[in-house]
Amino acid sequence: MKLVLLSGGSGKRLWPLSNDARSKQFLRVLKNVDNVQQSMVQRVWDQLSEVNLHKDTVIATSKSQVDMIKSQLGDNIPLIVEPERRDTFPAIALAASYLYSIEGVSLDETVSVLPVDPYVENHFFSRVKDIEKTLDYGDADLALVGVKPTYPSAKYGYMVPAEVRDGYIKVSHFKEKPNESEAVHLIEQQALWNCGVFGFKLGFIIDLLKDNNLPIQYEELLGQYSLIPENSFDYEVVERTSNIVALPYEGDWKDLGTWNTLTEEMSSTVIGKGQISKDSEHTHLVNELDIPVNVLGVSNALVAASPDGILVTDKSASTRIKEMLKQNEATRPMYEERRWGWYKVLDYTKYDKGDEVLTKRICINKAKSSSYQIHYRRKETWTILKGEGQLAINDALRTVKPGDIVEIPPGTKHAIYGTTDLEFIEVQAGSELVEEDVKRVIMNWEEIKKHCLNKSTSMIV
Amino acid sequence: MKLVLLSGGSGKRLWPLSNDARSKQFLRVLKNVDNVQQSMVQRVWDQLSEVNLHKDTVIATSKSQVDMIKSQLGDNIPLIVEPERRDTFPAIALAASYLYSIEGVSLDETVSVLPVDPYVENHFFSRVKDIEKTLDYGDADLALVGVKPTYPSAKYGYMVPAEVRDGYIKVSHFKEKPNESEAVHLIEQQALWNCGVFGFKLGFIIDLLKDNNLPIQYEELLGQYSLIPENSFDYEVVERTSNIVALPYEGDWKDLGTWNTLTEEMSSTVIGKGQISKDSEHTHLVNELDIPVNVLGVSNALVAASPDGILVTDKSASTRIKEMLKQNEATRPMYEERRWGWYKVLDYTKYDKGDEVLTKRICINKAKSSSYQIHYRRKETWTILKGEGQLAINDALRTVKPGDIVEIPPGTKHAIYGTTDLEFIEVQAGSELVEEDVKRVIMNWEEIKKHCLNKSTSMIV
Repeated sequence: MKLVLLSGGSGKRLWPLSNDARSKQFLRVLKNVDNVQQSMVQRVWDQLSEVNLHKDTVIATSKSQVDMIKSQLGDNIPLIVEPERRDTFPAIALAASYLYSIEGVSLDETVSVLPVDPYVENHFFSRVKDIEKTLDYGDADLALVGVKPTYPSAKYGYMVPAEVRDGYIKVSHFKEKPNESEAVHLIEQQALWNCGVFGFKLGFIIDLLKDNNLPIQYEELLGQYSLIPENSFDYEVVERTSNIVALPYEGDWKDLGTWNTLTEEMSSTVIGKGQISKDSEHTHLVNELDIPVNVLGVSNALVAASPDGILVTDKSASTRIKEMLKQNEATRPMYEERRWGWYKVLDYTKYDKGDEVLTKRICINKAKSSSYQIHYRRKETWTILKGEGQLAINDALRTVKPGDIVEIPPGTKHAIYGTTDLEFIEVQAGSELVEEDVKRVIMNWEEIKKHCLNKSTSMIV
Repeated sequence: MKLVLLSGGSGKRLWPLSNDARSKQFLRVLKNVDNVQQSMVQRVWDQLSEVNLHKDTVIATSKSQVDMIKSQLGDNIPLIVEPERRDTFPAIALAASYLYSIEGVSLDETVSVLPVDPYVENHFFSRVKDIEKTLDYGDADLALVGVKPTYPSAKYGYMVPAEVRDGYIKVSHFKEKPNESEAVHLIEQQALWNCGVFGFKLGFIIDLLKDNNLPIQYEELLGQYSLIPENSFDYEVVERTSNIVALPYEGDWKDLGTWNTLTEEMSSTVIGKGQISKDSEHTHLVNELDIPVNVLGVSNALVAASPDGILVTDKSASTRIKEMLKQNEATRPMYEERRWGWYKVLDYTKYDKGDEVLTKRICINKAKSSSYQIHYRRKETWTILKGEGQLAINDALRTVKPGDIVEIPPGTKHAIYGTTDLEFIEVQAGSELVEEDVKRVIMNWEEIKKHCLNKSTSMIV
């Protein structure tokens, strides 16, 4: 069986900790068995590894999350990068074409698709593993996973059973987001919540692509991505399929997509610098800033602080943050994790004549490096804070250490490599400080080094 | 009549906006008649100017507030700087010796002492002006100002009248901080709250110094400051004086010393970047950070954010902040106003081997400058952001503009002058980043310039 994890989400609902580059699934607010803080993505990855499913897994995601996934899960997981954000059907179609034409997976192979961040117990993934044999045994087109409702929610999809068999059910029909009294009735009919897992034979989706006159070769489909119907898999496929089975799962199943649900699973009431007074009951604090946050006499609240902003909300009101953010000015992300480490914006100023100055604190992780790159419209100045690194600058190599200053005028080729974790302050000054003002000459440090050594040798000779 | 304003206060009660250098009186949370934000000190100064008392005023304060006062009120007000923080009696005694021996004020002259930050109506200062004639007319040693109590407070001092005369009262006795039922009884006796104003003939205090075998010459008293009884003026003088009159004042009189009282007078519910949802009733936000603060569904709260930290408090609990701060690690102030402008700490890191790196954003105000100084244990790197300035570095002069980088190794003489408001990022790196690591060679920019020009001429010749 092959697994496809869908990593989506724009991330406004957990502002200010989430932004376009850092969706909720990447927030390190949970704890693993060793008491190390981890994100939802990391938790799911650990759970997949436990049942040995991780080695057959690919992740479908958008460009903006690639660096974050690599930073949290490592470099070795195959990523299917959507050229634009559409919906779950296009994402799953692209993943299917990848498995078929790039990995050469057989059309008979079972593929299970699941969200990257369900908050579930370990044995949820045993049920996912059971999808393969259930598809065969039940002779079905689609296998889903269902969980017993704990209350008549109007937020979820319900699967009504036609017949309960040995270890799975035949699904009669679906009801998406019923009202509360309908939900009560559905629960009486033994309906299960749909957990967002889809299992099918690869051929089922490949056939569907053919039926839609869409290419089944990955590269080709990538080029026609904008032609794939922008629809959810639920509406585009599940609703149109009659032969569906569901595997019941008994246990916790939560969507930690709002502050209210997330704080219930937080590893501690205070994460980061700060204090909550004893009489502040059921209050949580998540602080990613370096300054302390003190909460005094405010109950049932969430206080979250990050370089993007500060939220103080009653937990019951937290879902309204999306609405409120529309009033905020658009700003650049103030913190990002990248494949080479992370950066934090310390200061940004735009001046009258259009000149801009951006000050960042940057960390290049040990044994990682930036690409060998050139900026045309800005000058950069680095002050090395911590650690040791190697610098490639206009084809010369040198080591850098704390206190060193590196000046990078516009048009200068430069790359930096962390011999250890390496931190520095970067001051960018120029007329247009955008991420796009970069020409990447060489990506890989070993090649950058080789290039520079060749240049210097030839200069000597 | 001479006026002495006492500017004290350590400033923990309005954390995080106040710190040791910026007491509550300097917070710009009020608005003047032209709708410009102003601090309590600035408000009082405007009110004094209105009745033309400002030109006879000196300010007694501590070293840590000198730069702040100059920044907010200008350079031209005589300051009496206490060599250490003691209490109001030593501060007033020092001010009296200054008036006597430095300004040559006559012993018959009336001196009125008042706190720098009472929140009062303009005609309060007309009453202060009346102190002079009332002292004479009532033939009293001390004249105070009293306000009619609005409730039986246990926080204030009460003056019980012996006799009500024309425009003033003879005081029978005092009761400091009575309990509530005592206060009810005092109010029945027509007692007034003591507003903290003390009026006397200069000779009265000079005699008192003599009686205590303390010097009456300013410089001498300065040297023996630690010998002056560490006591409040109320206990040391007022309680021991029998011949006291009080001038009644009718109007608002408030001590904006807690978040609860301060927010009542704030110019707007939101100061700085951010929003408060409509259903957050009686909630105030003061944000000095560059990032937005969003408050959702939390009523009766105060949210205050500054580079020193973030406070989220129910207004009724806000006085407990002092207590809570004892748990916070001690940190350096993250924002300070100085006589030359201001700075804000962007980042501070201490590394394993004791190396430290401090990144600041600094503004040198137009026509102001730093002193010509040397640091021995740190290197500084400046990246000019905005404006234009003149730099003196090891006796050479040059202009600086945005994008310029200035490297200042340890042992380098340097000063910077703002031709316009001049902003730059400063990265300090060294083994001991303390304000004390500075040798000031020349204070005044004109002299620095002259010095450098002389040097360069002699080098040319």
